[in-house]
This record gives sequence, structure tokens and C-alpha cells, in this order.
Amino acid sequence: MAAKDNVKLIGLSMSPFVARPRIVLKLKGIEFEFLQEQFGKKSELLLKSNPVYKKVPVLIHEGKPICESLIIVEYIDEVWTNSGFSILPSDPYDRAIARFWGGYIDDKILPQVRPFLEDSDESSKAEAKEQLLATMKQLEEAFEQCSKGKSFFGGDNIGYVDIALGSHVGWIKAFEKIAGSKFLDETKTPLLTRWAACFLSADSVKGVIPEADELVEFAKTIAAARRHSSPPS
Amino acid sequence: MAAKDNVKLIGLSMSPFVARPRIVLKLKGIEFEFLQEQFGKKSELLLKSNPVYKKVPVLIHEGKPICESLIIVEYIDEVWTNSGFSILPSDPYDRAIARFWGGYIDDKILPQVRPFLEDSDESSKAEAKEQLLATMKQLEEAFEQCSKGKSFFGGDNIGYVDIALGSHVGWIKAFEKIAGSKFLDETKTPLLTRWAACFLSADSVKGVIPEADELVEFAKTIAAARRHSSPPS
Repeated sequence: MAAKDNVKLIGLSMSPFVARPRIVLKLKGIEFEFLQEQFGKKSELLLKSNPVYKKVPVLIHEGKPICESLIIVEYIDEVWTNSGFSILPSDPYDRAIARFWGGYIDDKILPQVRPFLEDSDESSKAEAKEQLLATMKQLEEAFEQCSKGKSFFGGDNIGYVDIALGSHVGWIKAFEKIAGSKFLDETKTPLLTRWAACFLSADSVKGVIPEADELVEFAKTIAAARRHSSPPS
Repeated sequence: MAAKDNVKLIGLSMSPFVARPRIVLKLKGIEFEFLQEQFGKKSELLLKSNPVYKKVPVLIHEGKPICESLIIVEYIDEVWTNSGFSILPSDPYDRAIARFWGGYIDDKILPQVRPFLEDSDESSKAEAKEQLLATMKQLEEAFEQCSKGKSFFGGDNIGYVDIALGSHVGWIKAFEKIAGSKFLDETKTPLLTRWAACFLSADSVKGVIPEADELVEFAKTIAAARRHSSPPS
């Protein structure tokens, strides 16, 4: 199938955004070549494939590049329709709701965790903690709305919002260690806590989301690189 | 058709984001009730319909709210498929490219025009001018890639990227007056300049995009409201 599919993914295994297409490709049983970038460097292929943002992930399908993780997820869902797994719901209203929460996750989580990856002052970090917790509580409500009592945002199976948020679970657990504060626990976010355990144990997810300790170490590399490249604030 | 469609749109006629669903609804011949918000106030219906962002536009279809302008555009495209107009291309790769540029426009334009709506210092405004011009030049290239020599990003007809960017054309012309700098002209962005004229003269767009002078006045109202609500910087 590999030759027929002719799929390559430019990525970095530590990136939550790269985890998204990796999980969907596994879910749909699509073989692909994973072209790993090195942190802090950008390959010629990446620069040529995503000249606008110069960022991973980029999916290359039959020689044509597709950029932006959630756009790649939709593309895979639209091209490989015979896998038995549909990532987006079939009903237009449910699709709109899924896209809404996908957008919300991208809008909120990265800006809120950034202070933990930078040499930010304590008040910025405290504010970021509060904001991230508020986001998780909002997503707890979203889970209730989307899952309708089932295991995943997508119902019985992993869907679009599961992938959008689930890709961040490793990093959220890493930030819990870095910030010394819980964002996923039985008291504040009981539904999401159970959902996260369920998501991480799915066959298509295993081996894709790094362990929290590994990400804590990687966070130090990111912080050091930022210190090196930015003027002191 | 109005009763059957049962469509309401919560919006503000000056908002480029509200112009998007208005144009698509007109293009598809869908009758709807336009529920205008007052600037600076938020109706009970808006707060109830979009509790997360509390922002316009919100489409209410058969009593169910859909938020976020480009998500609304996709929803309308998926629900009303028999109009003869398809907003997104049918090919998955072309759809991914359209979504990429839609995301790019939302990522860039609003943050770049914000300094003109606030009491920003001259250096922030000069930087914003440079950035907005770079964005327009990038979109000039995107137009070449998407339109394939036709009138619109969508080819012969107005499509997703036309709506995403076209909704901003009135404001771009207003910012040209405010900033004293051209962003759409025959020298820097000849293709986009012709495209913008073509877009504004389309039947579905006429009466939806306000005139630049009207927006310049409205920009003063926004700036005054921001001065009133923010501490001096």
C-alpha cells in the first residue's frame, strides 16, 4: 500500500501538531514515510513545501504539499473515505461544532502554554495557569456536549476534536510538572481526565504522544533555544 | 422560502466577518433575517448563542447556533448544496489550499490592522503598514496560484478565499485612507486590485461591503470606545 499511497509527512515527533496527522494516518491504516526534522533546523524540503509558514507538519501526497495540521486532518478524511473511520461527523451541524472546538483549541492552548516555554515572569506564568485551567473547564463542558455520554468527543470513536485536543495531552501533562499545577484531574475536569486516559490507550495513539518526562526535558531545550535567539526582556 | 429556510444571522453591518455569511447566503439565494447588533452592546440572544466568544456573526438555523465566520461559510455550503453555487472546490487538494489561504487571511489581517484602530504609536503603525503590504503581496501570489487566470480565487465564480479576503476589501480601502498608504494598487498588487474591483461589483456583494468613507468614520467610533475602555498605554 505504501507505494500506492505515496504519502510523506514532514514533522517532529515532539510536536503536538504533527501528532494530529500521524494519528489520523494510523487510524485510517495509511502507510506513510515520516520525514523527521531536527529541532532548530529547517530542511530544504520543509522550506520548499511550506514557504509561507515554514512550519511542520506538512503532508506530501503524490508530490503535492498540504500544510496546517487541522487542514491536513480534513484532507486525509476527504481523500481516504473507505477506511471505515470518518474523522469529522457526517451531519453538517455536528461538523460545524467539531470545527468550532478545533479552532478554540488552536486559539487558546498554544498561547496559554507559551509562558512555560519562555523565561516569563512569575505573574505571566500564574496568569497562564489560570487561563489554561479555564480552557480545560470550557473543554470539559464541550466534551459533555459532543460526546453524548460516549467515550470520545467523536462518540464511540476518536474524531476531529479528540485529535485536536488529544495531540496536546502529553504536553498538558508535561506542563503540570513544570507549573506544579493540575490541569487534568478528577476534581476539576473529571470527564476530560477519563477521556485523556482512554485516548492515550487507543492503538492509533500509542507511540505517537511522547511521555511527559520526555517533554519536560524537551521544554528545557526549547527554552534554551529561545533564550539564545531572543533579546532579554 | 423564508419560513422553510428558518435562517437568522446575528451581525453588525460594519463587520467584515459578518459580511462573509451574508455574501454566501445571497449567492445561494437563501432568505434570512438579519438581526443587527448595536456596536458596543451585546444582545441576550448573542450571549446565549455564542457563550464562548460572545462575538458576531452567529448563524441560527432551525434554532441551532453556528459560530465563527468561516465555519458558518462551510456550514452553509454543506447544507444548501442545490443552489448551483459551491463555495469550496470539490477536489480535496483544492479545498485544502482554499482553507489554507482562508486561515492565512484570518491569521494576518486583523492583527495587522489593529494598530490603526487603536491609539498606537507611530512605529507600531509603520510596522503594521509594512506587514499588511507583505500580506497583500503574498495574497497576490496566492491569487495567481488559485485563480489559474480566471477572475476569482475560486475560478469563474466567487469561492471560499474570495469571501474570506473580499469581506476585508472595504476595510483595506478605509485603512489606505487612515494610513495614507496604498495596499491595493496597480503597481504593487495588480492582480488583487483587478480582483477587488471585480468582487465588489458582483451582485451578491453589492450593498454588503460598506464604503471606505463610512468605515473611516466607524473606525473613529471604535478607537474612541477602545480609549474609553482601556487604560492609557
